[in-house]
Amino acid sequence: MLTLYDFKSSGNGYKVRLLLHQLRQPFIYLETNILKGESRTPQFLEMNPNGKVPTLALGDGRYLAESNAILLYLAEGTGFLPSDPWQRSKVHEWLFFEQYSHEPNIATPRFWKNYLQVGEYDERELKRRQQAGRDALGVMERHLRENEFFSSQYGVADIALYAYTHKAYEGGQTLSDFPAIETWLARVRAQPGHVTMEVV
Amino acid sequence: MLTLYDFKSSGNGYKVRLLLHQLRQPFIYLETNILKGESRTPQFLEMNPNGKVPTLALGDGRYLAESNAILLYLAEGTGFLPSDPWQRSKVHEWLFFEQYSHEPNIATPRFWKNYLQVGEYDERELKRRQQAGRDALGVMERHLRENEFFSSQYGVADIALYAYTHKAYEGGQTLSDFPAIETWLARVRAQPGHVTMEVV
Repeated sequence: MLTLYDFKSSGNGYKVRLLLHQLRQPFIYLETNILKGESRTPQFLEMNPNGKVPTLALGDGRYLAESNAILLYLAEGTGFLPSDPWQRSKVHEWLFFEQYSHEPNIATPRFWKNYLQVGEYDERELKRRQQAGRDALGVMERHLRENEFFSSQYGVADIALYAYTHKAYEGGQTLSDFPAIETWLARVRAQPGHVTMEVV
Repeated sequence: MLTLYDFKSSGNGYKVRLLLHQLRQPFIYLETNILKGESRTPQFLEMNPNGKVPTLALGDGRYLAESNAILLYLAEGTGFLPSDPWQRSKVHEWLFFEQYSHEPNIATPRFWKNYLQVGEYDERELKRRQQAGRDALGVMERHLRENEFFSSQYGVADIALYAYTHKAYEGGQTLSDFPAIETWLARVRAQPGHVTMEVV
């Protein structure tokens, strides 16, 4: 049985939970409170030396970290990941875009605003990231004006980008500026087996 | 013929150049000065809406961005990427680690120190990133104490992590604190077909 070490309000964790639900794959969920250092204990670092959730335990002593690496692992051989090599490369492109250009600028401002007090984060750095976040949403908007999904059909690239985009307003973004994204968010929510972030 | 839009001092670009040289794959190199906005022109954004180097043109109207997605594309079917699914997943894990935990904390401080004046970047943010960079190097060091490479043999995970690690001192890191990393850097440099960052 798979075990997912996760934190309920983590969008990176939500990606994995959403895919597991859509794959109808049973798993044990272990809440790991990152705010209390529970991903930095010696036991946790044995599983994932980088000390982050989500971390997936396969049950045979193997562990996999990095949400998008976990998505690729779980989706292999399913309709959530194209088998065509070029389409697969374009999925990889979006997954790296998500971790480099999107997540630090959409998710991190949300984390600061939800969990930190004013003064605990740098206001100039917040503004810089919010602008970079708008740029990333602009790249998504441009793609979604001409495409239904981030691959030829709904799959892991959509799951990865949905996780924090649908909560982007919590980090100060105005999604009504991005109508194609709003339509896509509804399209993702309408997929079979969709669950919200609160479902573990 | 492949065309690589790249910027000579970009470590992300160097990853792709290094792999292309080691694959003995000929390519056209087109220097794109990101400091002069050459990756933000309407023509460039047609190729890569995210406006970043490296961007690979396949020559048939297809383009691929994101250095690590390009590495996975070029390495498919070669010894630089394991065919075993689990080993491949661990390579993905390191590639996402590189873009999320390593690059913003090792490469960005280097960029600031090399190309910006004091006052153009936030000193507190620099310090925060340098500490996170040390943490990322610590994760690598822990792995390299027991492993020769980031996969069962030299490959794209090593290439991705080598690119900025070997220049980490330019961003304020002291690599002599990480002896296993220093040994690994030498091991990477000794691989057949290795070229330095200056070779295009």
